[in-house]
Amino acid sequence: MGQGVHMQELPGIGKRYDIDLGSSTQRISVVVRQGIRDLYVFTDKGEEPTAVLELTGEQALKLGAVLTGTFFEG
Amino acid sequence: MGQGVHMQELPGIGKRYDIDLGSSTQRISVVVRQGIRDLYVFTDKGEEPTAVLELTGEQALKLGAVLTGTFFEG
Repeated sequence: MGQGVHMQELPGIGKRYDIDLGSSTQRISVVVRQGIRDLYVFTDKGEEPTAVLELTGEQALKLGAVLTGTFFEG
Repeated sequence: MGQGVHMQELPGIGKRYDIDLGSSTQRISVVVRQGIRDLYVFTDKGEEPTAVLELTGEQALKLGAVLTGTFFEG
C-alpha cells in the first residue's frame, strides 16, 4: 500500500504524507503532528495549496472512516 | 461516532457525507458513488467549494489510512 504515498519526516513537527492522485495538478498532503492533521489540497500546478484545513484527531478519524467505507452511524 | 457527520442519500448517485469541523466556515463533504469518492472542501462561508477532488477507491483508502493513522509503508 506504500505505492502512491510519499512520507517525509519533519523534524520537531511530525510527518508529512503526499498522496499521489495520478495527476500533475492534483495532490493532497497531510501533515501529522501532535494529534492534529493539517490537510493541504492542491488542484492546480502552483506551489500554493487551493485549500488548507486543520483537523483534530477525531475529525480526521471521521473523515478517514467515510473515505475508507468504514463509517457507520452510531 | 455518528456525531459530527451528516449523511444524505443521493438517489441514483450514492451517498453524501458532511463532516462538521466545528466551524461556521470550514466543512468537508464526501460523495460516495460507484467506487469513487468526490471530496469537497469548503474554507469560507460561500456555497461554492474551495477545492474539489475526485478520488479513486484506492486513493481514498490511502488518504483514509493516513488520516486514521493506519498507513504503513509496504
